[in-house]
Amino acid sequence: MSRFAGLTPLLAPRSIAVLGASSDATRIGGRPIAYMRAQGFKGALYPVNPNRSEIQGLKAYASVADLPETPDVAIVAVPADLAAPAIEDLAKRGVKGVVMFTAGFAEMDEAGAVKQDAMVAVARAAGMRILGPNCLGVFDARRSYYATFSSSFDSGWPVLGRIGIASQSGAYGTHLYTLARNRGIGASLCVMTGNEGDVTVGECIGWLAENDEVDVIAVYAEGIREAPGLIAALEAARAAKKPIVMQKVGRSELGEKAAKSHTASIAGDDAVTEAVMREFGVYRARNSEEMLDIAHTATRKIYPVSNSLGVITVSGGAGVLISDVAESLGLAMPEMPLDAQKKLRDLVPFCAPRNPVDATAQVSNDVTLVKTFTESMVRDGGYASVLGFFSMTASSRRWPAIREQLNVVKTENPDRLYVLSVIVQPDRRDELEADGWVVHEDPTRAVTAIDAMGRFGAGFAARPGAPAPVVPAVTLPASAPSEAEAKQLLATAGIASAPEAACSTVDDAVRAAERFGFPVVMKILSPDILHKSEIGGVLLDVADAGAVRSGFALLLERAKAAAPSARIDGVLVARQLKGGVECILGIHRDPVFGPMAMFGLGGIFVEVLKDVVFHRCPFGTDTAEAMIRSIKGAPLLLGARGRQKADIAALADMLSRLSAFAVAAGDGLASVDLNPVFAMPEGEGAFAVDAVIELG
Amino acid sequence: MSRFAGLTPLLAPRSIAVLGASSDATRIGGRPIAYMRAQGFKGALYPVNPNRSEIQGLKAYASVADLPETPDVAIVAVPADLAAPAIEDLAKRGVKGVVMFTAGFAEMDEAGAVKQDAMVAVARAAGMRILGPNCLGVFDARRSYYATFSSSFDSGWPVLGRIGIASQSGAYGTHLYTLARNRGIGASLCVMTGNEGDVTVGECIGWLAENDEVDVIAVYAEGIREAPGLIAALEAARAAKKPIVMQKVGRSELGEKAAKSHTASIAGDDAVTEAVMREFGVYRARNSEEMLDIAHTATRKIYPVSNSLGVITVSGGAGVLISDVAESLGLAMPEMPLDAQKKLRDLVPFCAPRNPVDATAQVSNDVTLVKTFTESMVRDGGYASVLGFFSMTASSRRWPAIREQLNVVKTENPDRLYVLSVIVQPDRRDELEADGWVVHEDPTRAVTAIDAMGRFGAGFAARPGAPAPVVPAVTLPASAPSEAEAKQLLATAGIASAPEAACSTVDDAVRAAERFGFPVVMKILSPDILHKSEIGGVLLDVADAGAVRSGFALLLERAKAAAPSARIDGVLVARQLKGGVECILGIHRDPVFGPMAMFGLGGIFVEVLKDVVFHRCPFGTDTAEAMIRSIKGAPLLLGARGRQKADIAALADMLSRLSAFAVAAGDGLASVDLNPVFAMPEGEGAFAVDAVIELG
Repeated sequence: MSRFAGLTPLLAPRSIAVLGASSDATRIGGRPIAYMRAQGFKGALYPVNPNRSEIQGLKAYASVADLPETPDVAIVAVPADLAAPAIEDLAKRGVKGVVMFTAGFAEMDEAGAVKQDAMVAVARAAGMRILGPNCLGVFDARRSYYATFSSSFDSGWPVLGRIGIASQSGAYGTHLYTLARNRGIGASLCVMTGNEGDVTVGECIGWLAENDEVDVIAVYAEGIREAPGLIAALEAARAAKKPIVMQKVGRSELGEKAAKSHTASIAGDDAVTEAVMREFGVYRARNSEEMLDIAHTATRKIYPVSNSLGVITVSGGAGVLISDVAESLGLAMPEMPLDAQKKLRDLVPFCAPRNPVDATAQVSNDVTLVKTFTESMVRDGGYASVLGFFSMTASSRRWPAIREQLNVVKTENPDRLYVLSVIVQPDRRDELEADGWVVHEDPTRAVTAIDAMGRFGAGFAARPGAPAPVVPAVTLPASAPSEAEAKQLLATAGIASAPEAACSTVDDAVRAAERFGFPVVMKILSPDILHKSEIGGVLLDVADAGAVRSGFALLLERAKAAAPSARIDGVLVARQLKGGVECILGIHRDPVFGPMAMFGLGGIFVEVLKDVVFHRCPFGTDTAEAMIRSIKGAPLLLGARGRQKADIAALADMLSRLSAFAVAAGDGLASVDLNPVFAMPEGEGAFAVDAVIELG
Repeated sequence: MSRFAGLTPLLAPRSIAVLGASSDATRIGGRPIAYMRAQGFKGALYPVNPNRSEIQGLKAYASVADLPETPDVAIVAVPADLAAPAIEDLAKRGVKGVVMFTAGFAEMDEAGAVKQDAMVAVARAAGMRILGPNCLGVFDARRSYYATFSSSFDSGWPVLGRIGIASQSGAYGTHLYTLARNRGIGASLCVMTGNEGDVTVGECIGWLAENDEVDVIAVYAEGIREAPGLIAALEAARAAKKPIVMQKVGRSELGEKAAKSHTASIAGDDAVTEAVMREFGVYRARNSEEMLDIAHTATRKIYPVSNSLGVITVSGGAGVLISDVAESLGLAMPEMPLDAQKKLRDLVPFCAPRNPVDATAQVSNDVTLVKTFTESMVRDGGYASVLGFFSMTASSRRWPAIREQLNVVKTENPDRLYVLSVIVQPDRRDELEADGWVVHEDPTRAVTAIDAMGRFGAGFAARPGAPAPVVPAVTLPASAPSEAEAKQLLATAGIASAPEAACSTVDDAVRAAERFGFPVVMKILSPDILHKSEIGGVLLDVADAGAVRSGFALLLERAKAAAPSARIDGVLVARQLKGGVECILGIHRDPVFGPMAMFGLGGIFVEVLKDVVFHRCPFGTDTAEAMIRSIKGAPLLLGARGRQKADIAALADMLSRLSAFAVAAGDGLASVDLNPVFAMPEGEGAFAVDAVIELG
């Protein structure tokens, strides 16, 4: 049985009890019953209310114990003070799922959180899952299952379709579903997790990934509270080739504050969540329209592994705009082959045959030109995706004839992604959607959605990365290691530091410097002096033996002056690395996702531009190299503008070893900072110059 | 008379002739007549066609000469080979404006461009303005003036309103207007300039800026071909406090290519156009929906100079999302005053009173809470902009009561910008719009539009910048100056270089170095060696007198080895600047906008990250300082992370002087590169270390 099958009684029940059932169809205890009665839920529906014998035409029961059978799920719509006894009754009865509308728990205050934890403990002991509390519930229009008090159905019922929604926010989940419905987009299954006392949005994603009636998953999240469920869910979705589009809010500090006050959720580090989403090819939507655009386009299930865009139009004009958008997204718009261009130009002398392909107003005289031109794009041009920009032409009288021609091409070449940018009334839009076109009004949004399909395709086709390096077991010291100890510990995992030697005498220092070659760096060595630079305890560019001797004396003198009682172990002499690119490699333990590796360019890049990338640990060298190449400043390492190419392979090796080290070190490791690491010219390695390890 | 009044006969005529008039209401010579007949154009309409005596119920004339009066405007819909004689006839008759649909000119080939130029010359000699050729024309629904063959009216007539559209592309102009109409947004005046043989989109913007029936201007441009008209237009719009929203395409290389093939337009440098738009507070829209969102919001004519956003909701959930968007745009969302928070919490114990303010579902029991809470936001919170997120609540049965409460607050406090994010059917949307609310479905788009109003407000309120520095007349040399000559020329404008001296003897060099202080930089001085670094002709870190002596000999030796016949003038000795931040200042002459100044951080910032800013020349120090502060890397100059603050004042002074120098130098100046310029710590100045001047 799969990890997520345990949610089936909750999300697709055969029988339902409603605790706090109301005869008033507008109250939260009345709405679910009214909805399911109106829409014809097929299973048993048991109102529970000690004061009524009949509710909305159904027999009502005085208590859970009185029910004629154990329902799969119970909707709890009782006041907060009656919630705990209700959960106990349900657990006793052996109910497998609870949808808990009742509010007044963790979202309120600390006392509420304690009450919530107690209820969840009761449920867990009984093997009963709770959605909520303080949640808007779940609905699946295909099963006429409405365990929700959302008032959104006042304005209409869902359009059946193959998008499943999982949302932490009830208000936003129904906002999204309503937007979809108004656009004729089928999103008929929607789970809203509220406080996530028990069931998380991650688990809901996993259950949707295993649901045969869902092809695409749309997610709204404010903060991820639990990693294993989410990771398993993302793996399940990827295995099933089901794209996930996610709107993750709480990006800003302001947003994080609001997230905490709103759903008592741990907003976590946005960059970390972003990294996990990128790892699994989840598309991060910027707003709810983009989310729906992309989810809807994805229901065609065409995910080009190597995407390319051909544009057909009969009126020009938007070609520049479309090219701009494609270029900014990195979506290829190759030109048509020259012989195909010639063929089209022979047909229509003043056509634009390159791409965008413009058949011109000649189409008015001969509508079969639409077919000829589009066919040439598909067959000769070989584009994976075809976008027709017809704007308000699609509302004109010539449109039915054009549509017919387009459909011929589409039917004969069903393996492409077909999208139209048109301005039409809903009936004409629905016709085109039924033909198999994806309809977007705005060409910018159309191109964005097409590009997303290629990203999904590339994600699904990606082969698993190289395994993470194997590193020996790590035994962390009892207290934070010194720089030298940290480097030694890291060296066991194959992480190289700049050649250096701890020297207790001035002669040792001179010998070490001569061995490394000048110039060298000298640093005071003392367990009691942590911030060496601040006391002048670091000397750069030490150029010869004489300078080593005078430097040695100077460092001891400064240490003594700054910290008279400090223990002095001597002086560290290290090779000074020249010609390398300064990078930063790091680890920090995220409370949800565990150790996360970070890579960036050093100095101003990380400080001012925040040009860094994160990844869960551990990972192999190919993932590490992809991380390195993904930052904005990567050209600096790749030999931009006549610079020397840096040793990317050595850098990637170090980063992947660091990720394996972090896992091997276990929970006791809070963070590692290798700053700077010098990436030397190709073939000359990468060396950590400073290393700080913090324990948790 | 204003600069743009000459377009009035063309864009708001009292009488119209149609050359190539057709009895077929679907042909390009038939549509304008059909449209104006259907909509009741008030002035005279004269079909011209030598083969018919009557067209669409109107008396037809055989020729322009036969017309009973000289029309204000003539629509030319004749075949390309009849266009030139038609223009001659019209010029002879004294017609003031021509709307030229006919295609086959500059958009086609070089021969077409020649024909187009000839027609424009004829028109200009006669004081006649041409819109087009190859244009879709112009319409103004308020006057029932339809000099266009756009088929977009097949699906409906424009909604009257106060947005004017100017578009270079006909297809995109009507796409935009149709989108507006379908959303119930009033954009009833639309000019499409096509090939711009004569009338430019800039002039059309200017005419709209002076048109009393237009409050907001929406522009679609592929490339600006003429600067003075555009600049005068932007000045006129700013003076009239009319916001401009512009979609400028051709951003990408791909896009620029397509732009050229599509409208024969010089796409120009996108960064330059962007700089001009920024200078005049033009909002650059990312897509047509954003353009309409912002243009429509702007028709309320509330442009807060100091914007702030207060959010009211009855269901929470989108608060995080809204906060994220506001934060990313830099739109302030201050918290409610503490006493106001207390007041609201006293009313509704579990409300969220901070901002977003959530009155909770308690509103169902007491709808006046909506008024109380919103009023507190407006009066106690003092927010310039108020956004109500009510999503599908606005489609529910409780909505009319909520709307009434909201309207009370709105009516009593009319000076704020009021926006709603709701999901409603068009009739309910139109009601709310009539109440004075701006309605957006998507909260992200709502926040973006609100933010744009603040940007307009700040732009309108901005005081004129300090005048550009006065610099002496510049006499450029006959050929490109050497580095030393360039620095001397720039010094006359007060642009400081690092202290340096041309030294013909080694003793001179030692004396100069001792005067400047060590270390110094030494460079070979020769008019025949341009790329000094490549032959090893630059020595850095020259540390003492001995090193100056050996360096002098080394440079002469290297120069001789690399270029035996080169004239050697000696060696340049310069102070080596330490501790400064490397910047780049430059000038390049844009073919459309003239000299443009550039500022960026040096090295990788300009090369890899393209982190630069442009501005038209000349400008004063406050503009220069704003440029400097606007780049991403600015924190480096402003003392980020414990760095020394750079001498921003000196840098701004140099940049503004450079801008004045560029203007004083006139058309002969092609470019200036000051790279690097060292911005020294505060109070220590800024110095150009290298200077290259290229002549045009």
